[in-house]
Amino acid sequence: MSATFPDQYRDLFQKKAFGAFTTLMPDGGPQTTPVWVDYQDGEIWVNSAVGRRKDRNLRRDPRVAIAVIDPENPYRYVEVRGRVREITQDGADAHIDKMAKKYLGQDKYPYRQPGEQRVLYKISIEKVHAMG
Amino acid sequence: MSATFPDQYRDLFQKKAFGAFTTLMPDGGPQTTPVWVDYQDGEIWVNSAVGRRKDRNLRRDPRVAIAVIDPENPYRYVEVRGRVREITQDGADAHIDKMAKKYLGQDKYPYRQPGEQRVLYKISIEKVHAMG
Repeated sequence: MSATFPDQYRDLFQKKAFGAFTTLMPDGGPQTTPVWVDYQDGEIWVNSAVGRRKDRNLRRDPRVAIAVIDPENPYRYVEVRGRVREITQDGADAHIDKMAKKYLGQDKYPYRQPGEQRVLYKISIEKVHAMG
Repeated sequence: MSATFPDQYRDLFQKKAFGAFTTLMPDGGPQTTPVWVDYQDGEIWVNSAVGRRKDRNLRRDPRVAIAVIDPENPYRYVEVRGRVREITQDGADAHIDKMAKKYLGQDKYPYRQPGEQRVLYKISIEKVHAMG
């Protein structure tokens, strides 16, 4: 089961649009957090750090939801349901720098903490609902 | 288990800030949708219509997550986890008009469909995480 992200909403990933990213807690309840989002090769990429709650949740249950709202028009948005296909540290440092460039206009991600291990979640898209 | 929404973030409910609202699908997977949000008597109120997916989800599993982002600063936001305490149609029509006033500047909700039954979810707050 996979779905294609609609072409006419790809511009959301060019803009500094945040994703409202939902993972599942150990008891199955949802947790929703604003995150930077990227689109690569038909998948959504999210970057976090090893050991954070999102990271622990995704290693236990790969099911996610993401809503991306157009910052210029909140009635235009895309909702995605999907599943983390791959969790990797390979390329995660370069990727967070790329996200810092997009969202902050900075070449290097400025909030890196000592000892922090960045991690990249590659999310396959299973359902898409677009509005506006 | 209940938590208090922090006073210094109450202004988010005065602004036209959307909530990224998550419910759980029948298989336990998350679904996240932008919604209008209200704050009343220590609870978050969300308005939908009977029979929609959110409505069906909430009648089966009351657990929700809501992220509310400051429209003037996406790095300032509040994440809430909670539970629907009450589902009611009482007052739901008046409430959607109130939300139309807040978000659209209109006295009456303009998108009402024939036969639509509005419904109000009163959500008790269990966990709050505020940033920015």
